[in-house]
Amino acid sequence: MKRLIIDTDPGIDDSMAILFALRFPEIQLEALTTVFGNVGVEQTTLNALRILEVAGRDDIPVVPGAGKPLLRDYRGKGYRVHGRDGLGETNLPPPRAQARPERAAEYLISRIMGSPGEITLVAIGPLTNLALAVSLEPRLAQNVQELVIMGGAVAGPGNATPVAEANIHNDPEAARIVFHAGWPLTMVGLDVTRKTVISSAYLARLKEAATPITDFISAVTAFYLRHYRERLSMDGFYVHDPSAMGYVLDPTLFQSQKVYVDVEIGDGRSSGQTMADWRGQWEQPVNVNVCLDVDSSRFLDLYFEHITRK
Amino acid sequence: MKRLIIDTDPGIDDSMAILFALRFPEIQLEALTTVFGNVGVEQTTLNALRILEVAGRDDIPVVPGAGKPLLRDYRGKGYRVHGRDGLGETNLPPPRAQARPERAAEYLISRIMGSPGEITLVAIGPLTNLALAVSLEPRLAQNVQELVIMGGAVAGPGNATPVAEANIHNDPEAARIVFHAGWPLTMVGLDVTRKTVISSAYLARLKEAATPITDFISAVTAFYLRHYRERLSMDGFYVHDPSAMGYVLDPTLFQSQKVYVDVEIGDGRSSGQTMADWRGQWEQPVNVNVCLDVDSSRFLDLYFEHITRK
Repeated sequence: MKRLIIDTDPGIDDSMAILFALRFPEIQLEALTTVFGNVGVEQTTLNALRILEVAGRDDIPVVPGAGKPLLRDYRGKGYRVHGRDGLGETNLPPPRAQARPERAAEYLISRIMGSPGEITLVAIGPLTNLALAVSLEPRLAQNVQELVIMGGAVAGPGNATPVAEANIHNDPEAARIVFHAGWPLTMVGLDVTRKTVISSAYLARLKEAATPITDFISAVTAFYLRHYRERLSMDGFYVHDPSAMGYVLDPTLFQSQKVYVDVEIGDGRSSGQTMADWRGQWEQPVNVNVCLDVDSSRFLDLYFEHITRK
Repeated sequence: MKRLIIDTDPGIDDSMAILFALRFPEIQLEALTTVFGNVGVEQTTLNALRILEVAGRDDIPVVPGAGKPLLRDYRGKGYRVHGRDGLGETNLPPPRAQARPERAAEYLISRIMGSPGEITLVAIGPLTNLALAVSLEPRLAQNVQELVIMGGAVAGPGNATPVAEANIHNDPEAARIVFHAGWPLTMVGLDVTRKTVISSAYLARLKEAATPITDFISAVTAFYLRHYRERLSMDGFYVHDPSAMGYVLDPTLFQSQKVYVDVEIGDGRSSGQTMADWRGQWEQPVNVNVCLDVDSSRFLDLYFEHITRK
């Protein structure tokens, strides 16, 4: 049994990742903590509750976190990709359950320090909550089983900017803190998430399962597909957040390498860029296990099999 | 007849590039301007004079330029690659000729503005002289025939740092000025220079020509080969500066694409990095023709044929 907390900013692909995790009996999802990102934190919190409800799991706590990056205002443009409601402008009714009154950073500390070495933390949004948590309690890093993040790029271009991936770019200073905190950290970035594409044909087959979960995915991804078609001329979309979950569920899907990665901060052009020092020129200890390749067809089969199961 | 001025910091591969240019009857090399870089400017100036002497062309003027980057001190570590004398610690005797009393930036302005549209400028060192020249006389950019630089990287890692190429990293602010000045600018960067390797076997064959030029190349490259063997475990070296000259001599060797490229400045980790905006996210006009691929074997044949000719 693997105990999981997901820090998330749902987000269309966040929802696909969370629903994926919930399909594995050997995964015990213990909480969702939310953060600004694809849309504002009030909305991502509502969406987290909605997603759990779709899966019939609104017993799982949702704890709201940071509403803005550490050093700057929130000026996210994720609504262009995820819609103004963060779920493809499906404008779902309000969730039945409510978010917990705690704050995400403190909640992460209490849960992780309360079960040392037991909890796998998966962060698929900006890293603000994690940066706050590990700044409040530096021992947090040694007390997770593993930290897996969706974010960054070391071998190819960015998406938020020509050099920066969106989650890191949304709070570069938080990412720098998290990358240097000493966790057993695996980065599932654009280097691999761009290698897996969910096509409209794949989604059409998925829809045939006609479960509440596949109905939901089918509804929320329509907006996402349209964005990719219009902006990137693609008949499908890159699989960002579900890839990070794929790593948690089956790390053998990925090839990875350990390396020192730093994050550019500040307001320059390259702010939010992740930089891997393959030749040891910065003389820093290795801090990240970076995923560099993925068996995409095996991932897509795994996702399909579990998400469509009745 | 193509009229050429080379701005250079010799440098082992600079010498290989300059000697290459001198082997083409259709190229008229009109001057070398020098800059700090691989070693200090006093040394690069002496080396420029020596190289011309080897080719029997010490009639060509050498004009010394900047001794340090625009905004910082010179702290180059090029001596590790090029030796303390910049020419592989061959410690050649002083050159017969002397450098001209002008300053490089002003000299470039007077020569280029005196022959509008006639002169191809090839910059194979840090871009400080060019930044000063085009800041003094902005019309310079419209009055060269073409500007070809060796520097930068847009699709792969750097060499001076994990993200920055050495010539750009040696003066990032100068590079940003030059990249935005409006020249017809072609960038021959690590994206292509790393695709061409001169091996020790190639050098051994080259040495058999036993001309003053091949003797010189054979002598200065021994240090370079050793550096590559010890630091990069390569039996040969990347062809940086001669590739830029290859572009001038035969642009059909290269595949290139026009794109907006910016240069990161300041003192952050990514200082000196060149960033290409392939998707137009920064909404800036295209400013650089970036070389992305090269026919390496044809380049190596061309170099060998001309450099060994008696």
